[in-house]
Amino acid sequence: MNLFNEPLRPINIGLASFYDSMVAQGANPVAVEWRPPLEGYTELTHTAAGVDIEAANAEAFRRITTGRPLLVGMGRAADVIPGFAPARGRLLITHSGPPIAWERMCGPTRGAIMGALLYEGLAETPEEAATLAASGEIEFAPCHHYGAVGPMAGIISPSMPVFIVRNETFGNLAYATQNEGLGRVLRYGAYGPEVIARLRWMDAVLYPALAAALAASGPIDLRSMTAQALHMADECHNRNKAGTSLFIRAIAPALVQAVKDPAAVADVLRFIDGNDHFYLNLSMPAMKAMLAPAENIPGCTLVTTMARNGTDWGIRVSATGERWFTAPAPLVEGLWLPGFTAADANPDIGDSAITETGGIGAFALAGAPAIVQFVGGTPADALNATLEMYEITQGEHPAFTLPALNFRGTPAGIDVRKVMRTGITPRLNTGIAHREPGLGMVGAGLVSAPSGCFAAAFAALRAL
Amino acid sequence: MNLFNEPLRPINIGLASFYDSMVAQGANPVAVEWRPPLEGYTELTHTAAGVDIEAANAEAFRRITTGRPLLVGMGRAADVIPGFAPARGRLLITHSGPPIAWERMCGPTRGAIMGALLYEGLAETPEEAATLAASGEIEFAPCHHYGAVGPMAGIISPSMPVFIVRNETFGNLAYATQNEGLGRVLRYGAYGPEVIARLRWMDAVLYPALAAALAASGPIDLRSMTAQALHMADECHNRNKAGTSLFIRAIAPALVQAVKDPAAVADVLRFIDGNDHFYLNLSMPAMKAMLAPAENIPGCTLVTTMARNGTDWGIRVSATGERWFTAPAPLVEGLWLPGFTAADANPDIGDSAITETGGIGAFALAGAPAIVQFVGGTPADALNATLEMYEITQGEHPAFTLPALNFRGTPAGIDVRKVMRTGITPRLNTGIAHREPGLGMVGAGLVSAPSGCFAAAFAALRAL
Repeated sequence: MNLFNEPLRPINIGLASFYDSMVAQGANPVAVEWRPPLEGYTELTHTAAGVDIEAANAEAFRRITTGRPLLVGMGRAADVIPGFAPARGRLLITHSGPPIAWERMCGPTRGAIMGALLYEGLAETPEEAATLAASGEIEFAPCHHYGAVGPMAGIISPSMPVFIVRNETFGNLAYATQNEGLGRVLRYGAYGPEVIARLRWMDAVLYPALAAALAASGPIDLRSMTAQALHMADECHNRNKAGTSLFIRAIAPALVQAVKDPAAVADVLRFIDGNDHFYLNLSMPAMKAMLAPAENIPGCTLVTTMARNGTDWGIRVSATGERWFTAPAPLVEGLWLPGFTAADANPDIGDSAITETGGIGAFALAGAPAIVQFVGGTPADALNATLEMYEITQGEHPAFTLPALNFRGTPAGIDVRKVMRTGITPRLNTGIAHREPGLGMVGAGLVSAPSGCFAAAFAALRAL
Repeated sequence: MNLFNEPLRPINIGLASFYDSMVAQGANPVAVEWRPPLEGYTELTHTAAGVDIEAANAEAFRRITTGRPLLVGMGRAADVIPGFAPARGRLLITHSGPPIAWERMCGPTRGAIMGALLYEGLAETPEEAATLAASGEIEFAPCHHYGAVGPMAGIISPSMPVFIVRNETFGNLAYATQNEGLGRVLRYGAYGPEVIARLRWMDAVLYPALAAALAASGPIDLRSMTAQALHMADECHNRNKAGTSLFIRAIAPALVQAVKDPAAVADVLRFIDGNDHFYLNLSMPAMKAMLAPAENIPGCTLVTTMARNGTDWGIRVSATGERWFTAPAPLVEGLWLPGFTAADANPDIGDSAITETGGIGAFALAGAPAIVQFVGGTPADALNATLEMYEITQGEHPAFTLPALNFRGTPAGIDVRKVMRTGITPRLNTGIAHREPGLGMVGAGLVSAPSGCFAAAFAALRAL
């Protein structure tokens, strides 16, 4: 009865333009956000072989969220990453994202590889380095194929020191290099003398000091540290000020006692203090270590890897194992460093999307409103970014909670089926590299994953 | 025309019970939060002598918000706080809040004074200390009368080391002791052997190390550090995890180079790392240094001090200078440490309300949602606490901004007139001490200032 006595209100589903014109005409519509499913979507509850997908995803979520990543030590890539040691006539350099040949690599990846060859002493000039890189004598492979992750270009060459993270729950290991800071740095494609000199200092002073301190302090719990940083307005991808602070607090006493030279200790502390992104290279291998046990679960449709090489954007899904599903890497909407514009930007690049894959990064933006000063947008956008990600994830992370959402767990475990059904793809925030080799960082911003990877993965899952 | 075609909605102003009964009767009322002005309120734009209050308040706000407090050094109270040095037959001990005689002092203040006398070597047993304290031989005075601030009981005795903060803009100084940590500590009224031993270690190791590091590092900008901590989900009163982290980052390199003994450096770093409230004793003198230049401005109705001695709750207002306006200290609603209940709690105590007076603390709760795990309430309450404080303040702090409110400045400069007109008194969060001497901390919680202080101050302002 009441229904017909009340003013009628139209409900608009989807397209905002219809809503706007109703408002313009004086109606009082209700907007329902909705997108059609992606092309190729059908309901999928069991694989063709009859595996129960919900049960498989629940098991993957359990593994992801019960992992306990500890920073246990450091070593040179060739010494500690299985398969990385140079063998007869073979030199391995790993890069971010899915596999790619030199010819298709973007500028910053090429630049970073050239820098790594200069750093390794295998070339004297950038030109020599480029010639060597193109010669076929170097083997290129994704960091992810070696249990490693690298931000931006993500280059790891054999003599580079890496952090070693062990997932105590499952025993698996993950690796990442030490973070150089922002600006003209190797991972953004720069290879100038100051870049190589910094890498050599990080090798000669920073690495042995941190390695000695870690040996003295014992393992550092990166799940606890990340959880604390999320309560201190980091999202642990593009805002790592709290994580970096907590790492300094944890390592400083051992550093003082393990390293004899006070000047070296002070230099190490000043270097880390001068780089609020230092913790990124710990949050990334922590997430890699937590996600790896969820790989290769039959029937599981959760994403285990999202990574970009600056040319291709790729994902891997649990049930389809090592297979990459790719789409062209999109451009990033961002804030630009002085003197740069969107025209300078390389498309989206880096393994750092492992943070979002693990339920932090842009998935935890709601707790990191100050980040909009670095990546753009507004605090309200940041809140909405997190809320939207609950639509495409398996559950709420029990270890990573957001005080701003009344301690709700972050959205974790991206389900390819939910991405397909809702048309919502994962959001990321990220740094932006100059498209030319040698120039470094130009900005930072926000981007959504391209839907093509998910559509391709879904087709493969349906065929299992 | 439209008005009469639309359903009518009653507007309820004030009392929630009317609103609730309209809802119960099926009406669809709009609630307007409103309280009547406090008794004694009248509009007040000029003093009786004709001074323009708005202009005076604007000047005070300018002074408060342009202050730049730097941590410039350390020293013993008797050596560095003017008027503190013991003279013939006179021993000064300062306490938090407005003036009070031994006979009216609460348990935790008595306990902390007894502990200070044990620490100074002036008594051998707690009983001896109590007898000496009651003898009339000791001079008691508020910390605020000496430019100092002390959390909880706030006791400063002559040999205690203090931080020295200088407001670079106006040249004035402020002081506070080093923070001991939580639990059974002097400032919560405990005086056991472990309390005195900790104070002696802080005197023998912590103080000289920090003093040497500060001398080597040069001044530390506490306005910048506080502003950063607010972006890292501290409110710098009961959540100081980020501030403590940033202080460690700032001091560690100099500490390493200024102090020869690595074991001592490591102990100092571990002590500070073990106490997430360490920064409180820096944020407090920083706020004191910023507020002091706003004292004694003719016609100014802004509050320059809020402080509690555990018996009386007191405020001082710019135009009325050194005069205290007091009311009985209320009990705090809080969360209790294991084994304690509200029955154990002393009423509200401490100079730490200087943080709220300066526009941080509970006035910045909106940016510190994780604090509810320590003081109670919900993140939504925290947001509302900050929003409500805009109703009673002069303006938005240009140096202290809240990302969660889209970088709006914190509410700063409490105007006695606005408190009177709205009936809204300042909110605080605070620790809770056991009501008996010697027992220490029992919890932490939230409290609103008693209106009586403001009514008394307003009457005095009207008479100026």
